[in-house]
Amino acid sequence: MATHHFTPDHYYTTLGTYDPVLRLADRDTVITTTVDSGGGDHSGQQVTPPWNPLTGPFYIEGAVPGDTLVVHLDRLWPNRRQGITSTRIAPHIVDPWHVVSTYEKESTRGEWEIDRENGTATLVKPETRLGRLTLPLRPMLGCLGVAPGGGQALSSVTSAEHGGNMDYKGFEQGTTVYFPVFVAGALFFLGDGHAIQGDGEIAGTGIEISFDVQFTVSLQKGKRIGWPRGENETHLFTAGNARPLDQALQHATTEMIDWLKQDYGLDQVSAHTLLGQCVEYEVGNVFDPAYTMICKLSRSILRQIGVMPATSR
Amino acid sequence: MATHHFTPDHYYTTLGTYDPVLRLADRDTVITTTVDSGGGDHSGQQVTPPWNPLTGPFYIEGAVPGDTLVVHLDRLWPNRRQGITSTRIAPHIVDPWHVVSTYEKESTRGEWEIDRENGTATLVKPETRLGRLTLPLRPMLGCLGVAPGGGQALSSVTSAEHGGNMDYKGFEQGTTVYFPVFVAGALFFLGDGHAIQGDGEIAGTGIEISFDVQFTVSLQKGKRIGWPRGENETHLFTAGNARPLDQALQHATTEMIDWLKQDYGLDQVSAHTLLGQCVEYEVGNVFDPAYTMICKLSRSILRQIGVMPATSR
Amino acid sequence: MATHHFTPDHYYTTLGTYDPVLRLADRDTVITTTVDSGGGDHSGQQVTPPWNPLTGPFYIEGAVPGDTLVVHLDRLWPNRRQGITSTRIAPHIVDPWHVVSTYEKESTRGEWEIDRENGTATLVKPETRLGRLTLPLRPMLGCLGVAPGGGQALSSVTSAEHGGNMDYKGFEQGTTVYFPVFVAGALFFLGDGHAIQGDGEIAGTGIEISFDVQFTVSLQKGKRIGWPRGENETHLFTAGNARPLDQALQHATTEMIDWLKQDYGLDQVSAHTLLGQCVEYEVGNVFDPAYTMICKLSRSILRQIGVMPATSR
Amino acid sequence: MATHHFTPDHYYTTLGTYDPVLRLADRDTVITTTVDSGGGDHSGQQVTPPWNPLTGPFYIEGAVPGDTLVVHLDRLWPNRRQGITSTRIAPHIVDPWHVVSTYEKESTRGEWEIDRENGTATLVKPETRLGRLTLPLRPMLGCLGVAPGGGQALSSVTSAEHGGNMDYKGFEQGTTVYFPVFVAGALFFLGDGHAIQGDGEIAGTGIEISFDVQFTVSLQKGKRIGWPRGENETHLFTAGNARPLDQALQHATTEMIDWLKQDYGLDQVSAHTLLGQCVEYEVGNVFDPAYTMICKLSRSILRQIGVMPATSR
Repeated sequence: MATHHFTPDHYYTTLGTYDPVLRLADRDTVITTTVDSGGGDHSGQQVTPPWNPLTGPFYIEGAVPGDTLVVHLDRLWPNRRQGITSTRIAPHIVDPWHVVSTYEKESTRGEWEIDRENGTATLVKPETRLGRLTLPLRPMLGCLGVAPGGGQALSSVTSAEHGGNMDYKGFEQGTTVYFPVFVAGALFFLGDGHAIQGDGEIAGTGIEISFDVQFTVSLQKGKRIGWPRGENETHLFTAGNARPLDQALQHATTEMIDWLKQDYGLDQVSAHTLLGQCVEYEVGNVFDPAYTMICKLSRSILRQIGVMPATSR
Repeated sequence: MATHHFTPDHYYTTLGTYDPVLRLADRDTVITTTVDSGGGDHSGQQVTPPWNPLTGPFYIEGAVPGDTLVVHLDRLWPNRRQGITSTRIAPHIVDPWHVVSTYEKESTRGEWEIDRENGTATLVKPETRLGRLTLPLRPMLGCLGVAPGGGQALSSVTSAEHGGNMDYKGFEQGTTVYFPVFVAGALFFLGDGHAIQGDGEIAGTGIEISFDVQFTVSLQKGKRIGWPRGENETHLFTAGNARPLDQALQHATTEMIDWLKQDYGLDQVSAHTLLGQCVEYEVGNVFDPAYTMICKLSRSILRQIGVMPATSR
Repeated sequence: MATHHFTPDHYYTTLGTYDPVLRLADRDTVITTTVDSGGGDHSGQQVTPPWNPLTGPFYIEGAVPGDTLVVHLDRLWPNRRQGITSTRIAPHIVDPWHVVSTYEKESTRGEWEIDRENGTATLVKPETRLGRLTLPLRPMLGCLGVAPGGGQALSSVTSAEHGGNMDYKGFEQGTTVYFPVFVAGALFFLGDGHAIQGDGEIAGTGIEISFDVQFTVSLQKGKRIGWPRGENETHLFTAGNARPLDQALQHATTEMIDWLKQDYGLDQVSAHTLLGQCVEYEVGNVFDPAYTMICKLSRSILRQIGVMPATSR
Repeated sequence: MATHHFTPDHYYTTLGTYDPVLRLADRDTVITTTVDSGGGDHSGQQVTPPWNPLTGPFYIEGAVPGDTLVVHLDRLWPNRRQGITSTRIAPHIVDPWHVVSTYEKESTRGEWEIDRENGTATLVKPETRLGRLTLPLRPMLGCLGVAPGGGQALSSVTSAEHGGNMDYKGFEQGTTVYFPVFVAGALFFLGDGHAIQGDGEIAGTGIEISFDVQFTVSLQKGKRIGWPRGENETHLFTAGNARPLDQALQHATTEMIDWLKQDYGLDQVSAHTLLGQCVEYEVGNVFDPAYTMICKLSRSILRQIGVMPATSR
């Protein structure tokens, strides 16, 4: 249960089987930083090439394929004052004829001032009808995951069973995330912090910014899961990553059914009846090669029916 | 501003250009009922063939193509004690290999007891691990819309620009819904009430039940919209209907951009920047031939930037 | 086995249950005409509003839901000298970023001179790098089908189980087409003739032109099929209509499996093994709301394995 | 213009930046072998783990990102007598309800006897209604491509801009294939030979077999392409790889437009008009994570309009 202070000096734009930057024991905590999606650090200086450079990988002792890696996001907070956005929704997010008729070719760079003490972001550039729009911070990690199996090295701008660039607002502090382990040591990566992000990351960015991060790892030995899962105070959730969204929804829903059977002792009729009337979906990334759909279930409902996880954490 | 009490004696399972059951003036209110998706009325007796039989159509005086019909859902409430669900998630909602390996062929019928006074639904059949699961009512209309244009008559189990079977939880009492008008009189239809429904209607049913309904209509003359829109206390929303969900999301997002330009005076950079960091999506129907994606924006953000609708209602 | 000469005086842009223009007995032949997709007749004059106006419906005596309507396309040939095309591929057919960066907003009208004696079409306008490009005619019907069930009236620019705007090159003279019957009399419609068409109708048009048409109908009583099927000298084929193409492919493949089981006595292992190594796909319409995928199988392979249709025609 | 005889002793199941097995100069020829998709060699013995183990990578001297690698497939021929197939179409290829109702869970292994002299494959197991079905060989490579950029290593069961598991029947002997170069030396991989394959590889296999292969490489310096392209005696073609098929079709069509502009001097109106009436599509892999759509254009049409490639090979 050690606490490691780790200062990254190199970053990866693929999740693969690389030499770890640190070896962690079960229940160890890491305090570290992430650069923004463009490679900029806490001072705003670009220290590594762009497109979601990630901190890591962290090797978790004892993790082998077939286990589940548990990552508790203890703290996520911007560590500088300037965040950056695109000001143009991507063309594949709107109707094709809309792109032909009214879509402006020019894009520009939005700048936001982050007030870390009061927890707000204020639009400062460009000058628009929005004025100095001020929004409450909701810091989240756009990209987190483990090394995929089979010798693959997958870009940090896409996602799959191993996690990756899911851009889901629920990957925020206080959330516990579960990943299938595909390689020895699991090899956990994280980055692409957003001070705030709309669903879908439809402009191709949240408010991109560097982060201070603290997380704690643990292992569920011999527990096999198929896709990233998460838990927070109110919900369980699963993430499915694929295109089209219909397929991402299939993955996420199947994973939730499996979870309810595996840990909560529900049979098919119970799990289907419950999800049929109580499931909630949220949309993660719809900008990148793979889209993300989140399948959620309220914890209070599980408490009501008196089911308890088969394995305690 | 008359109030009409209307008792339906026939129903339609297509939205088309049929003889109206009632003619309404601007700001008229209708108090009526809907049967459940199987054609059962308040007594539980089947009075018309199944698959979303609809009450209507209601002819709104003065409505012509190019106008917008406004429907305020004043009151929606179950009018009997028994609701019905499927107990099986549809096979296209889960992974195909899951269907091959673990999906049970048999389906059964779930029954729920509706406590209208206390606003709850309790599972009474079948006996499962869920016990007598009790959920708070959130009554909503699965299917509502107007007659489509071009002489079409579209099934009440699908959806398109005219609305239809969108199965979105936000079509509940207190919501104002907007429809493009395609034919003289608009011809408004409604039905398929659900006491409760999970996102997506993934089991093919909410808790299916007959409703008491009260709604009030008005017109926005010469106001042209592309897809159904809605407003409630907290949000504006738009509905896009298509497959795959990616395309439904394109329609809904484009409609929201158009709305922000049309009524709130935003230009592209403002609208895209705002949605990029503040948009929310919700999933409507993913069971039927066309899927529904909802694009939402918080009203409080619009209030903050001081924009006001160009046309008051 | 009568032959009817029929001159249409009105057209439909929906396939629905309308008063028939003619009643046909089993094995009757009809000699008639179709206008082009813009409503232009053999003289080039617009005689009816645009968007695929159809000739029909033809009522086939004795046809009831659950039967199969058989239509042999005896002869399809342009009946005037000028055909029309779009000169722009639709924006949803190319990459969204391509539309943003290089796609020209302006469209223009292409004109082709049809030499009906020699069977060629020559590009005459606009003047382009293509010069007077001359292509061999391959006349086909873009839209053909029957009235859908359940009181629906579906636009002639889309398609579903009943057929409709499938824009498949194989709907040409010499082909036999099969449709499920959904309403009494089947109610057959046809139109949207193309002198030539590329796969997918990606520009939104073939070479649009009016046709002389001859076809012969027959019935397969009590033979239930799910989607349009066809046969020509070399192949059997099935048509699936949906979005995305993946789903259209599912429908077409399932229908071909059903056909092989139903008429050729194959079990699952035989049908799957055969299609696995011998199936061919062709792309029909990818321009309109529903896309079309064609699943084909060579007749010579069926002859080799000595299977014969269970029902002779 | 050397000819190299290369006997592989290890294989990769990812396409990535690995030490090359051989360095080739421009116009060099390689004579080598590939194992089957299960890792079986010419003797039928499994020599490496399954799932498309590939021969290579071959380093082409002088190749740098932004160049195009040209690979001429001189000869592809099975080098043993036994080929293997699945006997079950994958569940995501048929309607979900079909999987629930009639799909058999059990799969089995199909065996085919390959007559290399007479060029046929004959089904020998299991015993089915198909008897000893005999088909003409059409040997093709299921998987071929180059190392992707950005440090990625992508599984040989999927595909993207770099090629990969496209399972297109047109990758056969006599075809010239073009790949974008992403890394120094291009790093060409090949494998997954099929004696015969139906479109789409819908059963998850062609007739899987090991191959004797001969190919010749060359470079187009400074020629930038986006997706794999090919040429044979009759057609040009481009390959788009993505899900859903709609998106693969977008990629392939855009690449063909770019090709016509880049090498054949066509402007938008010419390219769109030509493709609109003359394009052909073929379906590659629809079994794996990314699907493949092929966009084709007849060479004879290009000859007719007198356009010649801007760069000769």
